[in-house]
Amino acid sequence: MSSVLPDYKDIVRAHDLIREFIHRTPVMKSGTINAMFGAEIFFKCENFQKVGAFKFRGATNAIMSLPFEEAQKGVGTHSSGNHAAALSLAAGMRNIPAYIVMPRTAPEIKIKAVQGYGGIITFCEPTLEARESTMKKVLEQTGAAFIPSYNHFKIIAGQGTAAKELLEDTGSLDIVMAPVGGGGLLSGTSISVKAITPEAKVIAVEPANADDAHRSFYSGKIVPSVNPETIADGLLTSLGTLTFAIIREKVDDIVTVQESSIIEAMRMIWERMKIVVEPSGAVPLAALVEKKVDCTGKRVGIILSGGNVDLGKLPFTLP
Amino acid sequence: MSSVLPDYKDIVRAHDLIREFIHRTPVMKSGTINAMFGAEIFFKCENFQKVGAFKFRGATNAIMSLPFEEAQKGVGTHSSGNHAAALSLAAGMRNIPAYIVMPRTAPEIKIKAVQGYGGIITFCEPTLEARESTMKKVLEQTGAAFIPSYNHFKIIAGQGTAAKELLEDTGSLDIVMAPVGGGGLLSGTSISVKAITPEAKVIAVEPANADDAHRSFYSGKIVPSVNPETIADGLLTSLGTLTFAIIREKVDDIVTVQESSIIEAMRMIWERMKIVVEPSGAVPLAALVEKKVDCTGKRVGIILSGGNVDLGKLPFTLP
Repeated sequence: MSSVLPDYKDIVRAHDLIREFIHRTPVMKSGTINAMFGAEIFFKCENFQKVGAFKFRGATNAIMSLPFEEAQKGVGTHSSGNHAAALSLAAGMRNIPAYIVMPRTAPEIKIKAVQGYGGIITFCEPTLEARESTMKKVLEQTGAAFIPSYNHFKIIAGQGTAAKELLEDTGSLDIVMAPVGGGGLLSGTSISVKAITPEAKVIAVEPANADDAHRSFYSGKIVPSVNPETIADGLLTSLGTLTFAIIREKVDDIVTVQESSIIEAMRMIWERMKIVVEPSGAVPLAALVEKKVDCTGKRVGIILSGGNVDLGKLPFTLP
Repeated sequence: MSSVLPDYKDIVRAHDLIREFIHRTPVMKSGTINAMFGAEIFFKCENFQKVGAFKFRGATNAIMSLPFEEAQKGVGTHSSGNHAAALSLAAGMRNIPAYIVMPRTAPEIKIKAVQGYGGIITFCEPTLEARESTMKKVLEQTGAAFIPSYNHFKIIAGQGTAAKELLEDTGSLDIVMAPVGGGGLLSGTSISVKAITPEAKVIAVEPANADDAHRSFYSGKIVPSVNPETIADGLLTSLGTLTFAIIREKVDDIVTVQESSIIEAMRMIWERMKIVVEPSGAVPLAALVEKKVDCTGKRVGIILSGGNVDLGKLPFTLP
């Protein structure tokens, strides 16, 4: 892994490389939501991205950047979420194998998604040790390149293309907000925003129940995420060395939100905008619901990170 | 009410009149859904229309067409659904009152929607007689113009603008599908399709549990809808004299679908396209799920009629 951090020219290069493979997702607005917050809010709809999440940008950049010889041996990762699906689909587009290590307890729906995109799954015991040792074995046997889900130069550069497209469509903004888990989306977003409109603030939002990034940001060292319990299941991971280095330099604030606000924001997006977003994608709007960020009279961009939810397990039981 | 039927020039005129008030909704496609059916399917997303349904087109056309003197007295209707919301919002845009008669048993969520759009509600007992007598009283007291929800020249012409926009965006299609309840959307759609691409088939779809339009179509006279029970709650009403006259002339077939297929189609749209559609909007795709319509190799347009669902009462309990 390179120890050098990506900058905006790496995002421009990533965009040129992946443009033909990704969807240029729409930027949507809602008159009702704007009126509710007294702001002009632009939603970058990565729920409409391939595999249903921004993760496809980074995975595609990582895979399409591999030299030919290296690529032929395939790529590998351990993940049970959107990154595994994204890597599988992007590998298929380059006609190379994707080896995915997943705990054998992973939800059927996620196993099927990875298989549907052509990923080759090796199951392991549901422990971090088993995941890492199984991954090591698979990489040794296949010679595949390991592509982690966020702490990776090309992944970060790829994720930054979402904010680049957003700003190309909206022109200058006062605030750009993104959720933060491992920090791949946030670090990429912050590089694009500070390069394109340096005067704009980049504000990250995180569930209070998984506030390791907030605590890392304010303590100056990476605080690990320990058994977080939040509906925003895309934001469970800890920051990485690369993502944290970028976030410290370029992000203006990280605020936290309650679970009930995440559900309220998610419901607002579904009901008012008629689009399906996952809880993690609703986390930035939850910060406006809680008035943790003053958006009055401002032009605000929000990256809606994805739309993969289990429709059989929605949190909308109360009217 | 005019006894003359609208034709395509009335739809063009309606479009010119309402264009500045409505959203030009996007036409969306899904690679996955296309692959599943071996067809190229274009979804006209009226779930993104103002008030969340195509009904806003017809209501706006009816209201903006009223002569000044008549308009000042306002408009009235009895409806507890999307038409009442649409009429209320459109009336507000012309700065005239909308008088809505609703059964006092109407769901809180629908009452709030109409009130939110500025409609003035008069509650009545939940019987057809009470609805009609209360409506009559309100119209006499106010002098408001009665705007029914589908059997009305200007409403039909307004609803036809959705298919006009669809065909402007897609070019020629082999099949255009729409759900049918009272027939406002279907009759307007059929006028546009047969005028713009006469070779295209217009196929309507209706729940088997509310198959009055199917039976009317094949018996040649209006069969009333009697206590239908279907999840597609926008399709409960019977055809009207105007809508039926147009449908007999211009629609190629009306097919029926099972409740389970409607839920399956709805889930497919939510999961694959990441958009929120109401059950009625998923009814046409259900006909492809059931292979009631042969779409192999064809270019198919589907009008997604709306996206107003109660998120607390979704049918997705099973995985």
